[in-house]
Amino acid sequence: MAVGLRAPVASSLRPVAGCELGWAEAGIRKAGRKDLLLIRLADQTSAAGVFTRNRFCAAPVQLCRAHLAVARPIRALLVNSGCANAGTGPAGLAAAKRTCEAAAALIGCEPSQVLPFSTGVIMEPLPVQAIIEALPQAVARLQPSAWLEAAESIMTTDTVPKAASASCDLGGTPIAVTGIAKGAGMIRPDMATLLAFVVTDAAVAPAVLSELTRRVAGESFNRITVDGDTSTNDSFVVAATGGGAAPPVASLQDPRCAQLQRAIGDVAGELALAIVRDGEGASKFIRIEVENARTGQEASTVAYAVAHSPLVKTAMFASDPNLGRILSAVGASGIGDLDPSLVQLHLNDVWVARDGARHPDYREEDGQRVMRGAEILVRIALGRGTAQATVWTCDLSHQYVSINADYRS
Amino acid sequence: MAVGLRAPVASSLRPVAGCELGWAEAGIRKAGRKDLLLIRLADQTSAAGVFTRNRFCAAPVQLCRAHLAVARPIRALLVNSGCANAGTGPAGLAAAKRTCEAAAALIGCEPSQVLPFSTGVIMEPLPVQAIIEALPQAVARLQPSAWLEAAESIMTTDTVPKAASASCDLGGTPIAVTGIAKGAGMIRPDMATLLAFVVTDAAVAPAVLSELTRRVAGESFNRITVDGDTSTNDSFVVAATGGGAAPPVASLQDPRCAQLQRAIGDVAGELALAIVRDGEGASKFIRIEVENARTGQEASTVAYAVAHSPLVKTAMFASDPNLGRILSAVGASGIGDLDPSLVQLHLNDVWVARDGARHPDYREEDGQRVMRGAEILVRIALGRGTAQATVWTCDLSHQYVSINADYRS
Repeated sequence: MAVGLRAPVASSLRPVAGCELGWAEAGIRKAGRKDLLLIRLADQTSAAGVFTRNRFCAAPVQLCRAHLAVARPIRALLVNSGCANAGTGPAGLAAAKRTCEAAAALIGCEPSQVLPFSTGVIMEPLPVQAIIEALPQAVARLQPSAWLEAAESIMTTDTVPKAASASCDLGGTPIAVTGIAKGAGMIRPDMATLLAFVVTDAAVAPAVLSELTRRVAGESFNRITVDGDTSTNDSFVVAATGGGAAPPVASLQDPRCAQLQRAIGDVAGELALAIVRDGEGASKFIRIEVENARTGQEASTVAYAVAHSPLVKTAMFASDPNLGRILSAVGASGIGDLDPSLVQLHLNDVWVARDGARHPDYREEDGQRVMRGAEILVRIALGRGTAQATVWTCDLSHQYVSINADYRS
Repeated sequence: MAVGLRAPVASSLRPVAGCELGWAEAGIRKAGRKDLLLIRLADQTSAAGVFTRNRFCAAPVQLCRAHLAVARPIRALLVNSGCANAGTGPAGLAAAKRTCEAAAALIGCEPSQVLPFSTGVIMEPLPVQAIIEALPQAVARLQPSAWLEAAESIMTTDTVPKAASASCDLGGTPIAVTGIAKGAGMIRPDMATLLAFVVTDAAVAPAVLSELTRRVAGESFNRITVDGDTSTNDSFVVAATGGGAAPPVASLQDPRCAQLQRAIGDVAGELALAIVRDGEGASKFIRIEVENARTGQEASTVAYAVAHSPLVKTAMFASDPNLGRILSAVGASGIGDLDPSLVQLHLNDVWVARDGARHPDYREEDGQRVMRGAEILVRIALGRGTAQATVWTCDLSHQYVSINADYRS
């Protein structure tokens, strides 16, 4: 029951020169579903990534970091769904390495030129043999326009595949940017989201791509939350194949960086919001804007406190304008010197709380009208400064509980 | 569906000399239910309290702090359920004052000798007139053995009234300690829980009582969480009437302080755990012990991270041993230099994860057996030091969503 989100049309997803995608059914958790994805990249590809800060980060995340630190270029992304390969110790790391070796042998590169990714159940062993046996199928299917199938093959509790494309003129030469993501639950990214891959045919120096990737993550995947749980496997990787006609972007001083960042950011932003719209059990899409904060960090803290409050989220689910819960979440967010009498609260166009208390003109039916909608803007002004932050989230529904209670069954 | 919790038997609740309780039906939110409580205290009573750190703290909390700062002795506690009188601005403060004035006039003391408390919906005006009109009924009913009715009159979403008694020999002279509490949801106390009142007939100097109250809160109400939301109204007050025969405790050096703290702590601890057992929608009672931490604060942070993870809580609800979620919550708790390979996880007697990965001897059916129980011990060793912390919580169920989605209807 994703909120205002439909599966992308395959024809809207632009192929990216230098990038081919192939999927397979490896039977990792269930038979007969796409659960393995190989993305083959041209041999001059640069790549950059941001990863979870969870200390129990998965084996593939550890390996990605190691490979990105040494390997140029990156030649393939290998993704499985159904098993997270996290909480698996040294055996998990060895398993992830073996899948990289198998993929490298098939496409002709070093294992360190393969970046591995996993998503699924934590603390279960990766079925390495099943993956290795299915890999040739994925290689046989490699083709540049399989973005929608690629998006499908990385889904877990997602109800809708997530993919997006953008194009822009990079200093007069058109480039393509296309990406896919999966999300749904365990979403409170810290440096990234569950899994998101964006590929462009621009040629970009690794150092430039790293910085652009970091900036884009900060404005997209690091601004969303479903349930406040930061996954063991969060990974956001951007690859630049150089397969297009645009001359290389070699430095952050290149004026085309802004264009490139915007194009990658457009795709990442669309994917991030799609993850919230398809949050586990989501029936509401909620944008929380905190303004007049002293710092951006403070605004962000307050926005996340509201976004994570189970009481706010259940009221949203019920379309119940029990809006004092929002004030309570603001008050409990940890700003020791917050002056409640300066706090203003709007819901869409309705001024709910003025100077820390219910606005005298506020009427329950106005709050009710806004709460009934599927998309809600919560605007909170703190009266402390000029900084602001925006966070997107969804409600907490019966279905969230059902999905996560029954996840493994 | 409280977990292993029954309503206390009235005869088990010991009257406390110098303390009388009277309730009334003021019709604050619904007609025909006890929603007003007056506790009259002997005229030599000392009192101490710890209160929410929520910056949107309710008007009665502000007034309590002010009255405790100036008034000796405290002569009455006045409690209403159904309306929190929080997010109500200066009008809310004036309303709380008026109820103190009315109570003071009836029992013959200064308004500053009355401590007011409210619990219920936030950002709605306090029905002052209804409270003032019902107060004489509460006064007429004052009597020393109405502890169970008192516990009933402060309930909101609680399914079971919460009250407990302890007695001890204070240097050879018996004293009585009896208390009541209400909780259920919006429970992640920070310096207290929703509402809890403990009264003893010991005579205790205010400064001593303050320190004992702070210590007791730290080991009881500040070690529990239901949903991680810190309320606007959390208040824990201890009153010492001096109505018993024990000589006064005038200093923290008095060796009887340890006995007194233990007796108050026994009552507070029982009330705190009752709040978790009756957590909104709770079907599991979960004790989380974190050990081998570098500091107690660190152990506490990890314990709360696990206790607040919606994914852990929904797995508990489902009796699903999806235990990698616990490791993930540990990893995401913010300890930057945590070494996952030193982490051990037990569930009751079952060793689930050894050195950060699934124990080779762990069998799903063993995890399943533990998860099926109504009371579960999660034991996490961090391998970093010798500090430890314990936190109690409950699961996240469909009923939690229902209760909070429908709270006002």
